[in-house]
Amino acid sequence: MWQVQVKTPLTITTPKGFQASGIHVGLKRKRKDLGLIWCEVGASAAAVYTTNQVQAAPITVTKQAIQASQGRIHAVLVNSGNANACTGELGLSHAYMSQQAMAKSLNVAPEQVAIASTGIIGQPLAIDTLLAGIPQLMPTNDKDAADDFAHAILTTDTGTKTAGQQYMQGDVQISVCGVAKGSGMIHPNMATMLGFLTTDATIEPDVLQTVLRRTIHRTFNCITVDGDSSTNDMVMILASGAAGGATIVEGTDEALAFEQAIETVCQDLAKQIARDGEGATKLIEVTVAGTQTDEVARMIAKQVVGSSLVKTAIFGEDANWGRIIAAVGSIKEPLDVSNVDIKIGSQWVLQQSMPVLFDEAVASQELAKQDVHIHIDLHDGVGQGHAYGCDLTYDYVKINASYRT
Amino acid sequence: MWQVQVKTPLTITTPKGFQASGIHVGLKRKRKDLGLIWCEVGASAAAVYTTNQVQAAPITVTKQAIQASQGRIHAVLVNSGNANACTGELGLSHAYMSQQAMAKSLNVAPEQVAIASTGIIGQPLAIDTLLAGIPQLMPTNDKDAADDFAHAILTTDTGTKTAGQQYMQGDVQISVCGVAKGSGMIHPNMATMLGFLTTDATIEPDVLQTVLRRTIHRTFNCITVDGDSSTNDMVMILASGAAGGATIVEGTDEALAFEQAIETVCQDLAKQIARDGEGATKLIEVTVAGTQTDEVARMIAKQVVGSSLVKTAIFGEDANWGRIIAAVGSIKEPLDVSNVDIKIGSQWVLQQSMPVLFDEAVASQELAKQDVHIHIDLHDGVGQGHAYGCDLTYDYVKINASYRT
Repeated sequence: MWQVQVKTPLTITTPKGFQASGIHVGLKRKRKDLGLIWCEVGASAAAVYTTNQVQAAPITVTKQAIQASQGRIHAVLVNSGNANACTGELGLSHAYMSQQAMAKSLNVAPEQVAIASTGIIGQPLAIDTLLAGIPQLMPTNDKDAADDFAHAILTTDTGTKTAGQQYMQGDVQISVCGVAKGSGMIHPNMATMLGFLTTDATIEPDVLQTVLRRTIHRTFNCITVDGDSSTNDMVMILASGAAGGATIVEGTDEALAFEQAIETVCQDLAKQIARDGEGATKLIEVTVAGTQTDEVARMIAKQVVGSSLVKTAIFGEDANWGRIIAAVGSIKEPLDVSNVDIKIGSQWVLQQSMPVLFDEAVASQELAKQDVHIHIDLHDGVGQGHAYGCDLTYDYVKINASYRT
Repeated sequence: MWQVQVKTPLTITTPKGFQASGIHVGLKRKRKDLGLIWCEVGASAAAVYTTNQVQAAPITVTKQAIQASQGRIHAVLVNSGNANACTGELGLSHAYMSQQAMAKSLNVAPEQVAIASTGIIGQPLAIDTLLAGIPQLMPTNDKDAADDFAHAILTTDTGTKTAGQQYMQGDVQISVCGVAKGSGMIHPNMATMLGFLTTDATIEPDVLQTVLRRTIHRTFNCITVDGDSSTNDMVMILASGAAGGATIVEGTDEALAFEQAIETVCQDLAKQIARDGEGATKLIEVTVAGTQTDEVARMIAKQVVGSSLVKTAIFGEDANWGRIIAAVGSIKEPLDVSNVDIKIGSQWVLQQSMPVLFDEAVASQELAKQDVHIHIDLHDGVGQGHAYGCDLTYDYVKINASYRT
């Protein structure tokens, strides 16, 4: 007889030491809008923030917290419905009030609480509503609690985004799990995207920061929905050390395994975000090879996946390689474009920079799928890279023409 | 009694020395698709080309022609319907064949004929069709001929784009006129846009080149429709000298007056192109002041007018300043964003980086107009700049999801 193995979904409460909660307090009309991740033992923390020069109050407060606590964080409080951005001194004071209230309720120091917000920009946070909700956050480590948190951080997302990975460090099982939100305004360099990773690995904050930054460069920063970048984006990782493994040191096999797990989780979340771009019907994956450097390959991949003309062509299920090659040629870095091959789905459509005959019926069939893969080879080096995005649709226009009012 | 002054529209055949023609030869199904500008006396020529690294065959041929003729051009042959881009050696030979056939028909040297193409990428030019059309091009200097040319260069444009300006250089009347096309793929740095200017001023090619380059930087390069750049863009100016004025020398009042006339014509054409962006319902004009340099102001203006989220908000007639300030903050140059004012139409919506109360009804009314003006002041210098664009609509998606097939 076979033994039936029930695979438990991996959530942010899977790694030992983490609890979560997600509730509705009234910042949104009906849906959950306030969430908490709680690590009683305290976690090493690292974070990467939006590159937008206009940064929301919670970004400022969380940066300060991580600095002041020397990367030791107990809790992350997240609200959706209001971004608390462009809200001036009042917004900053609201952000501190949230942090302090949460810290008091959990009996930790304010600088051990990170905060994040997402939602509408430039309207004062309904601080009384938020503060009234804080005592109702009752973190537990069951998977429903993780699911509640995943819901509480959503805005125009059509569903929650979670991912997880487990591996053995010697005889200790390490879990790395994550949850994210992000729909419109998704672009390289952390745009209206929130991501929270938990792990029970043991690692110092500075090493964790290095690993996170490297991983995000290869994952979250390779997605684009509409080219805009936001005021509130943040990806944070908390490492509880509760699995009981040895401390992970840079440059070791253990560090490599850990980084690979983080990359897998981030990649998974990034693809979920790209697929859930506002109004999107398809995930577009662009891989680029044969460039002088990996960085140039990534630039090309992002340019192609971010091109409005490519995005609308894919929506129209049109194998329009002309727009792809035009996007390739428009990056700032000098390129040799004399020998470019382009493959859409399973078929080469351009070889040596010249169109080749392909089966339009097969192309239409492949472009009708939910996943579209474009591969580009410049045959001019060993650089490679990739980017993810989504198609540009009527619904994108619909959603964004009527978001605020 | 008043004297009724009938203002003749200024066209590319208004400047002395120019004739034009535009016909249907069959590169497009029904509409005009082949055009000619003819300057019997020969003109000083200058041109600015796409910055895309993938450049169409006619770009190569025209660059060579202007170099080989030392900037003395007799004719410009333009076809629409096929861009002759990504067509390899065959495409290049088609481009030379067109140039040579036109030269032979006009009895001038091939290098005195410039060529340009616009339309679909990567399909072989129907060269026999084009060549068969060349003898049918019968240039005249009446305004119908100019109108025929204006039609012959269009692709997805909804109408022709022409502009003109006249001024006195001493007692000689100088005319500067222009015609352009460009709808989708319009972006700074010359993207799927063709522009042809004619003037009867007397000026050397090198001076003309300098003036043109400077002017385009402030005009055509400040428009954006969808952020993509094309393989075929070109703006060319021909100066016949037929007005009989003295040669214009750099640094003189005459040069200044000439440059102002060119700038007026280019600005007018650029705005017409932005207004006619694919699917556009509104022209968006963004002016930026109070930056460290003019260049930074222009970067901000382009970023705002190119933001998909701003564009959809304007389509939705939504005074969404949050997306505007987010776009401001996302440029690469370091900015002081602590004291930003934003005005939409007649109302300030953000002051000192904080939202201010404004009349939503007035905002809706103003955003319902065909021209939307956004003004941004950073109060951090004397730099200023502007950019033009259009809204992002359902029709943009419709047009571009079904262009090729």
